Amino acid sequence: MKRIAILGSTGSIGRSTLSVAESYPDRFQIVTLAAGSNLEAAFEQASRWRPRVISMALEKDADALRTRLKKEGLGEIEVVHGAAGTVRVATHAEVDFVVSAIVGVAGLEATFEAVRAGKVVGLANKECLVAAGELITAEARKQGKPLLPIDSEHNAVHQCLRGGRMDEVSRIWLTASGGPFLNTPHSDFASITVEQALNHPTWKMGRRITIDSATLMNKGFEVIEACRLFHMPPAKVEVIVHQQSTIHSMVEFVDGSILAQVSVTDMRLPILYALTYPERIASDMRFAVSDLRHLDFCPPDLTKFPCLRLAYEAAEAGGARTVALNAADEVAVAAFLEGSIGFNDIPRVIEDVLTETNSGHLESIGKVLEADAEARQLAQQRVADRKKIHGPRATSFA
Amino acid sequence: MKRIAILGSTGSIGRSTLSVAESYPDRFQIVTLAAGSNLEAAFEQASRWRPRVISMALEKDADALRTRLKKEGLGEIEVVHGAAGTVRVATHAEVDFVVSAIVGVAGLEATFEAVRAGKVVGLANKECLVAAGELITAEARKQGKPLLPIDSEHNAVHQCLRGGRMDEVSRIWLTASGGPFLNTPHSDFASITVEQALNHPTWKMGRRITIDSATLMNKGFEVIEACRLFHMPPAKVEVIVHQQSTIHSMVEFVDGSILAQVSVTDMRLPILYALTYPERIASDMRFAVSDLRHLDFCPPDLTKFPCLRLAYEAAEAGGARTVALNAADEVAVAAFLEGSIGFNDIPRVIEDVLTETNSGHLESIGKVLEADAEARQLAQQRVADRKKIHGPRATSFA
Repeated sequence: MKRIAILGSTGSIGRSTLSVAESYPDRFQIVTLAAGSNLEAAFEQASRWRPRVISMALEKDADALRTRLKKEGLGEIEVVHGAAGTVRVATHAEVDFVVSAIVGVAGLEATFEAVRAGKVVGLANKECLVAAGELITAEARKQGKPLLPIDSEHNAVHQCLRGGRMDEVSRIWLTASGGPFLNTPHSDFASITVEQALNHPTWKMGRRITIDSATLMNKGFEVIEACRLFHMPPAKVEVIVHQQSTIHSMVEFVDGSILAQVSVTDMRLPILYALTYPERIASDMRFAVSDLRHLDFCPPDLTKFPCLRLAYEAAEAGGARTVALNAADEVAVAAFLEGSIGFNDIPRVIEDVLTETNSGHLESIGKVLEADAEARQLAQQRVADRKKIHGPRATSFA
Repeated sequence: MKRIAILGSTGSIGRSTLSVAESYPDRFQIVTLAAGSNLEAAFEQASRWRPRVISMALEKDADALRTRLKKEGLGEIEVVHGAAGTVRVATHAEVDFVVSAIVGVAGLEATFEAVRAGKVVGLANKECLVAAGELITAEARKQGKPLLPIDSEHNAVHQCLRGGRMDEVSRIWLTASGGPFLNTPHSDFASITVEQALNHPTWKMGRRITIDSATLMNKGFEVIEACRLFHMPPAKVEVIVHQQSTIHSMVEFVDGSILAQVSVTDMRLPILYALTYPERIASDMRFAVSDLRHLDFCPPDLTKFPCLRLAYEAAEAGGARTVALNAADEVAVAAFLEGSIGFNDIPRVIEDVLTETNSGHLESIGKVLEADAEARQLAQQRVADRKKIHGPRATSFA
């Protein structure tokens, strides 16, 4: 019986993890949950899973949840809140495996503390590796515990890496669906609308990650994650566009052999893989190989998608630059989504922020959070500058 | 330094193995060679590689080679011949690794003896697994030594299997190029000429294996080989047509993940893999992932290609039936190549022979060879029957 904590239990990965746990009641026990601010969902999860501890983002939500659970005769469930509450969920003595799926930098500290407490961590939070990857992977090495990727690309890489030793790997190939603008002429990019950008061809995801997929910044983050998780230089992590997203990623070995991983596009599969690693257990998530017909590939266009280039540059520089990349992107995407800047302004804002950010190693999660806050502030200014240039609600942008 | 014996050194796989050894002089030493009847090639190989022992098929060739080597001051190279000579090459005390690449049943005994002598064997000889797979794999298990496949499909499977335990495998998917008649209408099959059938789209190979690729019997043999090598029932070994032969094969695990192997179509790669396993060493055989554009797949058509169905049936029956399948196919293909029977007669001859062959286990290599001879005789009769029906040199066949 594997005893699980979920950081971000009411989000998409959190819910998928609970769905996996539901399918294998004899294998997985949900011990602690960190929900966000969705009180209703948190109450339902607490009632269904009876965790030892559940954490809410805000104190008022924790109070409300505690009262409601008591009323239902579930007063034995401890309700905590805030950053300290999340850390308590992540480091609970009865927990073996922590699913880190809180979106944004909010999950950083708790994830780091989980690793420090010797837990095996399944990573679905991008910031853990993009912003604090050097710290978290170093701590996991120190603890001698694996960090298991819970997203289709890195999970695929993890599987393919089993075909050889790490020093036998020559390259990692991340596949990219290419997003909705793969075949859109570059000249049309300035007039891309929010609605167009939110229409992702393969995956249904949150708004920010959908825009990040449209700019290929999401793939850029994955390049950085792969560098940190698998200790590879950026030059050895390549991206190839593969529209069908059937091959989730590939690993090339020094002898010239390449292993590729194929599966259905269902997040429960990498979650199951991480939860059961190094075992594999039977699932109903079958990919119909006999229905395979065509797989298409092409190289990414870094002129149309400068975000991917910026991510490689940040990966090379390391430290504060990757923190700034993530923070500036979050601000720029939010500004695009609210109509303040155009699609082509997203990489411009990010590049401005990167230019003004020192590279260099950040030696603690505290320093990472400081660098993140600084980059956000700077990005807000650059967004405001662009608003002044273009006006607040323009429908097309130069 | 790995010390190598090559059974079939003057054939295609033998020469590729020597080419690999040439590229890594610090890693591989050629200790013994079994050549066939190509005296000139045998002399060149002996001069270049200075093996301890070299074997020729015939005594007269061995005598001639011995004389010639003495004249060149290479009298220390022991020259032997025949079946006993091949066994001596395969079981030489200084040999660690035996490449089994003698075409046909001639390689069976020596390969079995190599396994029995505790050598690691790289298998490129189809008959070792199709005709005597049960015996050879049982002996390898007893010796606790791996049998390493040296052909692109099974080598690919071997690599993909590293992604999990054997009891976590749900299916093996062998890819098939589909041969030259993939898109030929079934109604045109009766008039397929030898020239058309010898024109394989992907691989340049010997004449029999090229015809076996055109009938998909080659894939049928590979199904049987996969069953024996990886201890899988035929129902768990599937075939999918993949024209580009970019993905060499796939393994599907119980959780729904599939690993696929991709590489250039160069036999030196699986040879290098087998020779260095469990290590991988750097090679110049790079597959250009960034040039990937389209991969196409479709299910095999068992109506057009009954040989594949016959192979599955023989695999289910086991023992003498797979011996008969191989023997009858060799006879039928030879008859087709000399214009005695038509393309559609190949499976008919084989099916006739299988119908008249008992299933059941063959308990020794001697029994395998007896069953092989019987099936050949029977196949010759069935070929003669069909000649009588159609006439000796018809250009089209009903």
